[in-house]
Amino acid sequence: MIGTALGQEDEYKGDYDDLLADQVVDGVDYSYAFDFFTTSMLWTVIAAAMVFIMHLGFATLEAGLTQKKNTVNILFKNVWIISIGLLTYAAMGFNTHYPIDSWQIPGILGINGPIKDLTEGAANNSFGYGGMGLAMTAYGDFIFQAMFAATAATIVSGAVAERVKLTSFMIYSTILVAVGYTVAGSWHWGGGFLSSLGEDGDAAFYDFAGSTVVHGFGGAAALAAVLILGPRKGKYTAEGIKPILGHSMPLAAVGVFLLFFGWFGFNGGSVLSANPGPLGLVFTTTALAAAAGGITSIFTSMIVLRKPDLSMALNGLLAGLVSITAGADSVGPWTAVLMGAIGGIIVVFSILFFDKIKIDDPVGAISVHGVVGIWGTLAVGIFGGANIVSQFIGVIAVYAFAFIFSFALFFIIKLIMGVRVSEEEEVEGLDVAEHGAPAYTD
Amino acid sequence: MIGTALGQEDEYKGDYDDLLADQVVDGVDYSYAFDFFTTSMLWTVIAAAMVFIMHLGFATLEAGLTQKKNTVNILFKNVWIISIGLLTYAAMGFNTHYPIDSWQIPGILGINGPIKDLTEGAANNSFGYGGMGLAMTAYGDFIFQAMFAATAATIVSGAVAERVKLTSFMIYSTILVAVGYTVAGSWHWGGGFLSSLGEDGDAAFYDFAGSTVVHGFGGAAALAAVLILGPRKGKYTAEGIKPILGHSMPLAAVGVFLLFFGWFGFNGGSVLSANPGPLGLVFTTTALAAAAGGITSIFTSMIVLRKPDLSMALNGLLAGLVSITAGADSVGPWTAVLMGAIGGIIVVFSILFFDKIKIDDPVGAISVHGVVGIWGTLAVGIFGGANIVSQFIGVIAVYAFAFIFSFALFFIIKLIMGVRVSEEEEVEGLDVAEHGAPAYTD
Amino acid sequence: MIGTALGQEDEYKGDYDDLLADQVVDGVDYSYAFDFFTTSMLWTVIAAAMVFIMHLGFATLEAGLTQKKNTVNILFKNVWIISIGLLTYAAMGFNTHYPIDSWQIPGILGINGPIKDLTEGAANNSFGYGGMGLAMTAYGDFIFQAMFAATAATIVSGAVAERVKLTSFMIYSTILVAVGYTVAGSWHWGGGFLSSLGEDGDAAFYDFAGSTVVHGFGGAAALAAVLILGPRKGKYTAEGIKPILGHSMPLAAVGVFLLFFGWFGFNGGSVLSANPGPLGLVFTTTALAAAAGGITSIFTSMIVLRKPDLSMALNGLLAGLVSITAGADSVGPWTAVLMGAIGGIIVVFSILFFDKIKIDDPVGAISVHGVVGIWGTLAVGIFGGANIVSQFIGVIAVYAFAFIFSFALFFIIKLIMGVRVSEEEEVEGLDVAEHGAPAYTD
Repeated sequence: MIGTALGQEDEYKGDYDDLLADQVVDGVDYSYAFDFFTTSMLWTVIAAAMVFIMHLGFATLEAGLTQKKNTVNILFKNVWIISIGLLTYAAMGFNTHYPIDSWQIPGILGINGPIKDLTEGAANNSFGYGGMGLAMTAYGDFIFQAMFAATAATIVSGAVAERVKLTSFMIYSTILVAVGYTVAGSWHWGGGFLSSLGEDGDAAFYDFAGSTVVHGFGGAAALAAVLILGPRKGKYTAEGIKPILGHSMPLAAVGVFLLFFGWFGFNGGSVLSANPGPLGLVFTTTALAAAAGGITSIFTSMIVLRKPDLSMALNGLLAGLVSITAGADSVGPWTAVLMGAIGGIIVVFSILFFDKIKIDDPVGAISVHGVVGIWGTLAVGIFGGANIVSQFIGVIAVYAFAFIFSFALFFIIKLIMGVRVSEEEEVEGLDVAEHGAPAYTD
Repeated sequence: MIGTALGQEDEYKGDYDDLLADQVVDGVDYSYAFDFFTTSMLWTVIAAAMVFIMHLGFATLEAGLTQKKNTVNILFKNVWIISIGLLTYAAMGFNTHYPIDSWQIPGILGINGPIKDLTEGAANNSFGYGGMGLAMTAYGDFIFQAMFAATAATIVSGAVAERVKLTSFMIYSTILVAVGYTVAGSWHWGGGFLSSLGEDGDAAFYDFAGSTVVHGFGGAAALAAVLILGPRKGKYTAEGIKPILGHSMPLAAVGVFLLFFGWFGFNGGSVLSANPGPLGLVFTTTALAAAAGGITSIFTSMIVLRKPDLSMALNGLLAGLVSITAGADSVGPWTAVLMGAIGGIIVVFSILFFDKIKIDDPVGAISVHGVVGIWGTLAVGIFGGANIVSQFIGVIAVYAFAFIFSFALFFIIKLIMGVRVSEEEEVEGLDVAEHGAPAYTD
Repeated sequence: MIGTALGQEDEYKGDYDDLLADQVVDGVDYSYAFDFFTTSMLWTVIAAAMVFIMHLGFATLEAGLTQKKNTVNILFKNVWIISIGLLTYAAMGFNTHYPIDSWQIPGILGINGPIKDLTEGAANNSFGYGGMGLAMTAYGDFIFQAMFAATAATIVSGAVAERVKLTSFMIYSTILVAVGYTVAGSWHWGGGFLSSLGEDGDAAFYDFAGSTVVHGFGGAAALAAVLILGPRKGKYTAEGIKPILGHSMPLAAVGVFLLFFGWFGFNGGSVLSANPGPLGLVFTTTALAAAAGGITSIFTSMIVLRKPDLSMALNGLLAGLVSITAGADSVGPWTAVLMGAIGGIIVVFSILFFDKIKIDDPVGAISVHGVVGIWGTLAVGIFGGANIVSQFIGVIAVYAFAFIFSFALFFIIKLIMGVRVSEEEEVEGLDVAEHGAPAYTD
């Protein structure tokens, strides 16, 4: 079967012509760009796989930075989040994220139902689906965005780690991802009001890959949840703040490097095509901002904490990445360095600040994603040509919504079933108490 | 040298024309699809790299779910398997997997020799090698399939862990991968009898990326090996089944997430081109089936075991993936969810069942790959348009062959040199006993 | 916004025509190869991401093969190296690596300044930048090469682990990567004297992806640093050589498999386009050489050490990879097997040799990268058509320069601030002594 007819006759010409013929959509022929479309779509699905691996990065980072006795619980939550995130995105998230013509409140709320079988018709196989600016099939669009969706809940997962009740978090994360994330995202990416600020949208809010609508959303939601949940037992005592060290720094480092790797898909895939110019720029700005964040957080920790702190260095890399996510396609390499460098400084002070005001965030998620997300978004206004007022509006709208939505949701769940494990369970560790097995044995 | 002659003259036109000229194979010009071919071939090699990373996934999953004292042994086996798997696939596997015209028994047995240097001629650089349905070079075809090949032995490795004798397993795995896997695969992928069931093959057995011919083969072979090997000491006692917990759940979770990631290459690469329609569909069905398997295994374990069991959740993700592997290109997203969901339920009961009948499979490989592989294969008959009778025939043929081949091979090795370590070595752990060094030190 | 105008009119034709119009550079039209260029550039950035993941591989390998008490220090060094490596490559490395017309000493020394904003002009979006032989944008070229750059320092990091002073290493690694690596590389890749050996360069030194100019450079630099630094306390005693076991073999194995994965980007990306012929060949030779190195190191360790040694098996895989890096595009599959197989034997004896002469290299980096790098480079002369004399010249030039540069630099740093931690710190472990926190807690 394989290669046996080489050169005998051109038996494949017809197959290729069939592919080109599929590019004719309702009488319009898109075949002139079929090869560009094929390459772009390939990049979209590879980028989706790279964003997927970020979930492993989140899982290992969160596990590494927390205590040994809660590791099974953290891993379990992450299996839950990626699974339920993908399913709810198919069930309602995708069409709520991108309501197109189906808004209940135009530009603000468009709750919609499940994706259909998209295999039929032009959406499946031609760039008639989204054009040059979204050079992918409907399924490509779905799977890339679906991989993003669960991120919001994962961010919260880190902040509430080591004391949240499993079933409560399962319910909370499901609704947060399915409804909260997608509604907020629709304001910007779904053609909602943030995308049409100014006259004819000429002052549109700009957030390339989601400093605000992904990371900021998660960080603000995390803050609300932590406020309701309270700190871990023994963290803030009469004698002062007691550091609770992470149980495995290799796990944490694996997590951050995998997140860095996945971010190339996260930002790079947000080019939404394989257009070589933006693609090269985005990879470069993403890498340089991360590197700058790593370096400044290292020096900041050496000065402020008087030691080269690994967890700060790791969070500095992530802060650099969040700093550039809103503007990765809008600035040059040295501006990217500047943006990441400032992010790496911010994150150290932010983490120390939240600890000081006794908001207990075991992994620093509120700082990395929430606080630095603000910086990244505003920086596009300062350096990247976006309207700074619109950037403020976008930040305020999304962060306020995320905070209120998360607070209300978590509070209701608290009233109904509680959100925190018992003190005994917290002391014993969630692994044995909730899951009946430890993460490690000898 | 770089970019210095920009725009001076079109010095590169000739180079590109040379590439196009290479597409003329024995007088037939395939240059009309060179760009499509280039993109497709790129996907093939990237997919091969993603399947490679599955071997790291298998290694860490197996190590995580077993005892600390056998970790070096497990990692060593996995280095062996990927190395010998690649080499034997070059030495005889590839040409035995795809006998083309070189069958000893037509459609059933075609043992053949090493790959030649494929650099010469059309196979290396044009889509004349395989056409639109196999848009890759001969080397692309080789390396993608080679990465699959070692999988069969890796599946067995997990099932026989913690008591198998190293040298015996080295011999067993070599022959299983080189001969057993490739002969069974040739029946379907190599143009053998399973691909020509029905009149003119109109009822051909269908197994898109290998629920049966990869995962089922491995699972059935594992069952045979475990039956000969017997359970680990102390597992089934007079007082009942004694659970032997895995020593590192983070390692296990890393393994499953890497397998999930690699599966996008495993299934996605099986499109055998970058055709954007099927590619988007396969990524979507693969992800949704995995998610559904994760969710249903979580709920099943909560109901049946009365606790949210992490190892069941992890195996549920894998079960979802095995469930969709045979039909990832043949069903829509919601059917994929259904298929994965059923797989996630099956795997929990199957693992409990095998434990009950005292078949000791430390990682659940027989259930995940073998039992769920049957489900995935039949499901394409039920939902995906394949002939259900042919699906049964394929399952029976491949599983029976894998079981008998593995049983006979392992039994012969047992007679000659034994297959099991001594009781002392098992108690001490294989790391120190066989390898002279522990996996961890303080 | 999405897919709403399907088929109404061909609204995207103009956008695509704009992209093609961008391919006209100073009046020369490169649009005939735009699709090939797009695919090639996509491969370049994906390969860059894969090379990035090698830094995680190095970090975990180094951490796994050393003692528990120095793990934070090792991870911290690796965060530093990737960050400073990327930044210095932008600040001076790239333009020093590729001086083009800006040599201070023609063919030998061309120290240059920061990359400019490359977004403007043809370099950003057309294959006019580098032509068919470098089918990427300027940013693509930058980011791919930048990911390589930090590798040299990472190799040294492993060899000096467990006793090097952090701040000293931070300074050393910065200068090594920014100046040393890029100057040596410019001799070959930047159009320097190694690329023009013979009449009109007909006997040019050949090193496809860097057996000598990346791995050899790192290995030779590591040897110099280790000679100055001396062995770890307690390693070579009056009673003989005391093995210091790695604290986590799973971490080490994760590292090697990730390096293997990343190597497909390292070698594959060095094709510098998506040309399907060379791409398929390079993936195949890379994988087979690694596999052969794994197998021969396993058997060599079984014969010489009388046990199946996991760390030797892991280093054997890497040795196979280094063996093929200089000639991955120049030999067929069976020659690749031979080259890798010899590399796998060399590495075992080399590691034992350096231990015997009391050169303490905790991870075997000098052997894997330095010694096997020589073999890989010469092998292209023996098997791959390169001029063997030029291969010798290249090896001698680069290794001598790397050794002398590293020795001088490390010696000067030793004089100024010392390079080694105190004996107390070494005994206590660098994690608590230098970083104030352990890597693991219970």
